[in-house]
Amino acid sequence: MLETTIAAIRPPDESAMAAARELQGRLTKPAGSLGALEELSVRLAGLAGHCPPPLPEPAAVAIFAGDHGVHAQGVTPWPREVTAQMIGNFLAGGAVVNAFARQAGASVTVVDVGVATPLPATGTPAGAPLTDAPAGAPAADGAPAIPLTRSPAGSPPTRDAPRLVAANVRPGTRDLAVTAALTRDEARAAVETGIRVADELIDAGAGILLTGDMGIGNTTPAAALIAAFTGIDPAETTGRGTGVDDPTYARKVDVVRAALRRHAPDPADPLGVLAAVGGLEHAALAGLILGAAARRTPVLLDGVIAVAAALAAAALAPHAVAAMVAGHRSAEPGATVALRRLGLEPLIDLGLRLGEGTGALLALPVVTGAVRVLHEVATFDSAGVAEK
Amino acid sequence: MLETTIAAIRPPDESAMAAARELQGRLTKPAGSLGALEELSVRLAGLAGHCPPPLPEPAAVAIFAGDHGVHAQGVTPWPREVTAQMIGNFLAGGAVVNAFARQAGASVTVVDVGVATPLPATGTPAGAPLTDAPAGAPAADGAPAIPLTRSPAGSPPTRDAPRLVAANVRPGTRDLAVTAALTRDEARAAVETGIRVADELIDAGAGILLTGDMGIGNTTPAAALIAAFTGIDPAETTGRGTGVDDPTYARKVDVVRAALRRHAPDPADPLGVLAAVGGLEHAALAGLILGAAARRTPVLLDGVIAVAAALAAAALAPHAVAAMVAGHRSAEPGATVALRRLGLEPLIDLGLRLGEGTGALLALPVVTGAVRVLHEVATFDSAGVAEK
Repeated sequence: MLETTIAAIRPPDESAMAAARELQGRLTKPAGSLGALEELSVRLAGLAGHCPPPLPEPAAVAIFAGDHGVHAQGVTPWPREVTAQMIGNFLAGGAVVNAFARQAGASVTVVDVGVATPLPATGTPAGAPLTDAPAGAPAADGAPAIPLTRSPAGSPPTRDAPRLVAANVRPGTRDLAVTAALTRDEARAAVETGIRVADELIDAGAGILLTGDMGIGNTTPAAALIAAFTGIDPAETTGRGTGVDDPTYARKVDVVRAALRRHAPDPADPLGVLAAVGGLEHAALAGLILGAAARRTPVLLDGVIAVAAALAAAALAPHAVAAMVAGHRSAEPGATVALRRLGLEPLIDLGLRLGEGTGALLALPVVTGAVRVLHEVATFDSAGVAEK
Repeated sequence: MLETTIAAIRPPDESAMAAARELQGRLTKPAGSLGALEELSVRLAGLAGHCPPPLPEPAAVAIFAGDHGVHAQGVTPWPREVTAQMIGNFLAGGAVVNAFARQAGASVTVVDVGVATPLPATGTPAGAPLTDAPAGAPAADGAPAIPLTRSPAGSPPTRDAPRLVAANVRPGTRDLAVTAALTRDEARAAVETGIRVADELIDAGAGILLTGDMGIGNTTPAAALIAAFTGIDPAETTGRGTGVDDPTYARKVDVVRAALRRHAPDPADPLGVLAAVGGLEHAALAGLILGAAARRTPVLLDGVIAVAAALAAAALAPHAVAAMVAGHRSAEPGATVALRRLGLEPLIDLGLRLGEGTGALLALPVVTGAVRVLHEVATFDSAGVAEK
């Protein structure tokens, strides 16, 4: 499945891009006056293969949640249980991602790809498949694949009803300071979960996917992934995450550096890198990105977890970058390192470091606006406006 | 009217700000993880005088349009008629501001505060009062004040029906390279027009005002206003506007520098500065900002025209800054000079230089999101999420 997805990812369509550039020049505004939005509209035309590209609607946020064995190294002051507790908060609609998703009219799908502690909404121990349970519903019986079936047949999840998808590959990664975080098969299973989620959301009508994540401790594997894929020193890829103190930060950098020395991950083997120092949500997000790219659907990246995953996706399929839109510049320094490597300029830069998909949601209206211009704005000719 | 408006502008409410800070600390997210949105929510609580402040809805864009005598100096390659032609485009819904306003659910009100050529939708020569004519409607008889009455009694203008308000103070400014652009009375009339528009829009229910502008040549008076209010050299406040070539740019800087030498405007006399080197839309926007501030309603600033007007408003009433939110950083260098002086950090920085209100509209979801967090996000206590 991973291989067929990668094979389906094609380069952008140059003629659609040229058509978008030409159209931008005829619209009633000075040439270039929409700044970064013009080039964004051109990229999305290239991705879609026609001009104008479809409006990126409706939007679907996919929040992949997982826990991390490296939590044992004291890289974060937050208890590991918060991952599961925040899933409860997402399903109850009480988190920032829910507030922003309601505002943007986006659906929220929470995917348990590797939570280690029981999920509070159901009391179900992690690892037991929940198969698309609505908030508070009892766990369904397990099924080998992710069914992702929806309550009203075929209808996409509504913005008011966040949905939980059970796809727990294992209850948290192993401690990357001690051993490989995942087996190669586990890493692949997580990536393929992300591909499947992308396919299901797009089949249900989504015009754009937004990356979200939840996982106490997950900025540590993100820093390791970014260092592994870029070769940049861990001191420059590691940040303070949710706000750690100086000793914790120093420990975090040491943990990342030691893990890279221990595992010596080969950036030419992206699945191997994900297995050695990644997280289940990072791997699944890489799959979501690949799945979106294979369907020529834009994927709006959130923060440092997303861009670490994006490096893995780009290593697996370089043309996947054409589907990526950088939502915002996370306060995490690794995010900037990764964006630079990907050649992406973020749309929003407001010092956010929350994750969940919040930065991507703030950027969504900019993406929609950039495309809307190609659909709705009059030309000089049609509006009877003189040119300079 | 100007004086009573200024007298009504009060400092922000410190206790509401403290309450917002305290609430931000209890919400289910790491402290500070929403970056600039947290401080924005605190500022808006201070402006409203309670926590949480009201959601900034519905949004109303007010586009003030005017022409400029300095057009005769060759500071722009665009014909002067484009100001009126673009008003036709706004009223027909074909401009970028319309596309963005539809997306954001914002109303669009176009105010002819000083257009020099006939408006194409009506064929009415500028200067003849149009009094709230819908697009294409024949001009109504003049009335001394702006009636601003709405078709369905009391209902705000809808996002699908841009509205034209006739408030032409004079058909374009005089050439500031030769004489004062406006008389003091004309400058005051334009400012008071802006105040009146703010009052009417807020009376009709607007929860936030967005500044818009249209006026071929209006970056030249903006550069002069910014230089006059900040003391910064015109070479640093003057930009290429819609994209002028090198000789035109050099001429533009010379015109601004000569005008400042000729008029020697006194920044302690803001009306005098507006009269000497301003534009009718700049003066009206200063009034809109003052009117919003007096009503404790946020005003989202667009680009360089708006921030030039904001300097005038701040000079007239320093506490008006509490009502200002900087929507975006225009590519015009003067915008950055003005924002620095105002102490405002813009929310969006995407190289836009279009005006019309487009940058403010792109930033609107960020403002709404910042306030929404205070209304909708669960606390650690209420959600049963552990703290670090």
